[in-house]
Amino acid sequence: MSKEITSRATDYSQWYNDLVIKGELADYSAVRGCMVIKPYGFALWENMRDALDKMFKDTGHVNAYFPLFVPKSLFEAEEKNAEGFAKECAIVTHYRLKSDPDNKGKLIVDPEAKLEEELIIRPTSEAIIWNTYKGWIQSYRDLPLLINQWANVVRWEMRTRLFLRTAEFLWQEGHTAHATKDEAIEETVKMLHVYADFVENWMALPVLKGVKTANERFAGAEDTYCIEALMQDGKALQAGTSHFLGQNFAKAFDVKFSDKENKLEYVWATSWGVSTRLIGALVMAHSDDQGLILPPRIAPFQVVIVPIYKGDEQKAAIDVKVNEIIKELKALGIRVKYDNNDNARPGWKFAEYEMKGVPVRLAIGARDLEKNVVEIARRDTKEKHVVSIDGLAEYINGLLSAIQQNMFNTAKAYLDEHITNADSWDEFVKLLDEKGGFIAAHWDGTSETEEAIKEKTKATIRCIPLDNKTEEGQCILTGKSSSQRVLFARAY
Amino acid sequence: MSKEITSRATDYSQWYNDLVIKGELADYSAVRGCMVIKPYGFALWENMRDALDKMFKDTGHVNAYFPLFVPKSLFEAEEKNAEGFAKECAIVTHYRLKSDPDNKGKLIVDPEAKLEEELIIRPTSEAIIWNTYKGWIQSYRDLPLLINQWANVVRWEMRTRLFLRTAEFLWQEGHTAHATKDEAIEETVKMLHVYADFVENWMALPVLKGVKTANERFAGAEDTYCIEALMQDGKALQAGTSHFLGQNFAKAFDVKFSDKENKLEYVWATSWGVSTRLIGALVMAHSDDQGLILPPRIAPFQVVIVPIYKGDEQKAAIDVKVNEIIKELKALGIRVKYDNNDNARPGWKFAEYEMKGVPVRLAIGARDLEKNVVEIARRDTKEKHVVSIDGLAEYINGLLSAIQQNMFNTAKAYLDEHITNADSWDEFVKLLDEKGGFIAAHWDGTSETEEAIKEKTKATIRCIPLDNKTEEGQCILTGKSSSQRVLFARAY
Repeated sequence: MSKEITSRATDYSQWYNDLVIKGELADYSAVRGCMVIKPYGFALWENMRDALDKMFKDTGHVNAYFPLFVPKSLFEAEEKNAEGFAKECAIVTHYRLKSDPDNKGKLIVDPEAKLEEELIIRPTSEAIIWNTYKGWIQSYRDLPLLINQWANVVRWEMRTRLFLRTAEFLWQEGHTAHATKDEAIEETVKMLHVYADFVENWMALPVLKGVKTANERFAGAEDTYCIEALMQDGKALQAGTSHFLGQNFAKAFDVKFSDKENKLEYVWATSWGVSTRLIGALVMAHSDDQGLILPPRIAPFQVVIVPIYKGDEQKAAIDVKVNEIIKELKALGIRVKYDNNDNARPGWKFAEYEMKGVPVRLAIGARDLEKNVVEIARRDTKEKHVVSIDGLAEYINGLLSAIQQNMFNTAKAYLDEHITNADSWDEFVKLLDEKGGFIAAHWDGTSETEEAIKEKTKATIRCIPLDNKTEEGQCILTGKSSSQRVLFARAY
Repeated sequence: MSKEITSRATDYSQWYNDLVIKGELADYSAVRGCMVIKPYGFALWENMRDALDKMFKDTGHVNAYFPLFVPKSLFEAEEKNAEGFAKECAIVTHYRLKSDPDNKGKLIVDPEAKLEEELIIRPTSEAIIWNTYKGWIQSYRDLPLLINQWANVVRWEMRTRLFLRTAEFLWQEGHTAHATKDEAIEETVKMLHVYADFVENWMALPVLKGVKTANERFAGAEDTYCIEALMQDGKALQAGTSHFLGQNFAKAFDVKFSDKENKLEYVWATSWGVSTRLIGALVMAHSDDQGLILPPRIAPFQVVIVPIYKGDEQKAAIDVKVNEIIKELKALGIRVKYDNNDNARPGWKFAEYEMKGVPVRLAIGARDLEKNVVEIARRDTKEKHVVSIDGLAEYINGLLSAIQQNMFNTAKAYLDEHITNADSWDEFVKLLDEKGGFIAAHWDGTSETEEAIKEKTKATIRCIPLDNKTEEGQCILTGKSSSQRVLFARAY
């Protein structure tokens, strides 16, 4: 088998890279920090995107498209109320190449084609969008604006990893404008629940919902809500964020509306986003040492059929039967691939689709045909069953639901086992080093303590859970009094 | 009415801008030459994109995503066989901003964050994709690669127009790799027909299919196939291109495969694309002095329902009936909007949806309710009919098909009337100036003559039609002998 992958136990990080590359989700590119999303990975992203897009539209949002470029001056307007924004970004300074007069066949940047004002490739679009909203919002009648954008964004990351952290990535960013604070907060929380619904019910990945501390908040936000997932190495991964932006962007870009009493007020804002990073989470949460394990609801193919035959006659007979099966599966909306390619042996195909995480494999040989049966293998549990062809489509439909549910249950059990209380500093450090996962501990509520804990352990406060219960206790670092536990973890 | 638009007769160009802006398809942005695609325009684009995407998938293509950036050196590799590439493009030279030490609150480009190699924002992706294909293609078993990408691209245009010519635009670009020349040519032609099918049957816009002359060919192509549409001012618009690239890119990026005899050969290539420019074509081909006229198959809303009432009681009764109607329309897959907003009068709404080109308007008042009827207005012909509510959904379904067909027929009649033979230079110039449209004329086959004609008249050879009939004649400019007519026009 040429496509061997590193085991989790040997090197977790290499295991992840192997899965992404050999599972054909993505590839490295000629551009530093940028990846190519391969057709199999992109089909997965399309299924995720389409499901999310429908959820956004069902909650009243519409899509639009704003420019890739943000003039530097808009960045400066935003900067005023958000000193914390990262400044690592791609900057366009010129608009023309020319032939190098000293070096035939080479190109140089034309120094005469320098832009008067530099353009930043959007790292996120609040600035360009709020600058636009200024022209769209005059009255309360223009509100709310509930707009989403699917786009590429660029952040000049120094250390990149396929899907998890790339210079360019794909995402969606919702940017909404509201007449009241309450309505904006309601929107922020609503979209957090939409994200949790999607990640749990489509990606089979349980999440914790909460609010970030001031340290971990988006620079322009009053409050950042997040969903946090747990990877198999015990590290947390932020899977989505929803920001209540207050009136910060309205003030930076002077966006006011006249309310029903004809009084001018600043507009209230939210923004929320998830990205192709979710694919990284999916890979790390569900896969095993044989390859990817994809949840049926978003898998590019839910079923792969592999024929086992000797000679053209057997193949022809199997083809006929398989085409009947495919028709029945498609009638139920099941995505199926028939791999009757002559260039590879069945064993190679079995390993290939195991690597690619196809939820159900169906193998059918000449003898099976006689007995009117097929062999079905589940990717999640690796169980195999011989099943009658009569009623097969219904059987598989049920099996796909069972796999989806089992994947969620497995991940949920793992998550539940990895939320542990720590009541002392020693216990906290020991849990982090030996068990991992989320550690629920008391904290004195100060940024200084949070920073100190991060400095000592690399653990951060992932969130303060929604509806957190109050409980008297002492901060694990300073011993100062605290009224609730917060969730710490090391994170991606 | 605040949303008055300029008439075609007064100022065709301003009429177009008015339609785009007041029809809420797009807006200007803070970035020179870049537009914002507004929700209504983006919903139109989504419908177009989804229809095309399905056609691509039905013909065996898959989607992927390649980086936004092209390193300058890849541009140079490509340049070798394509000196003609435009060099007006956005160039990233730096990767960090920093606070201006001399000017509080301002940002400057950090001179220490200069890239070793400049990155070009993709104007098209042949270079980055063929550089990637090199790693994906070793054997004939890896072929064909049938990959499409939906992406944003940037070309630094000096004079821009909403949708028709913007610095950034959205498009799809297919990039396929084949083992044989014949297969690549077949793919090129197949995709041309897919484009024609889409533009004619979804956009209701008849096109002429043909091949470009060497002058008008894509710089890296051996042959450029195109579809050309005709606008209401008699100017042509290239609506899509499909390129047979020969082995040019395979040679530039050294992409070889071993064939069945284990011999190394260069790979054959095609690329093909359509863009948001199609929306510009749609607007200019179908609209009138009252606003947009959108073809039902891609209109964001196919039906808008406007209630006419006095007081809450009437409104409530109408709401009940309309909700029944909506349910029936949706059951047939019809996209419907109910505008029962209290803030605007029916007359304003009528004008608004006329402006926005909604194919069917349905008005219903209290008296209509008593009589169990509604008033239906077609946007294309402006005919109004009073129709029974019984069987209404079926009636509207049929009406939408009739509108789609009528829009195509109208545009087809216009196109057919505007393909005119010219047999002398004087006739040619007179037709261009007085009638417009496509002029079928003899041409001596040389680039020099083509250039001279363009210089004198601004008309270019739009295409040599597929299956063009041979016919002896004399070039309209030089009088030299010619074996076929070609199609000239002034063009967008």
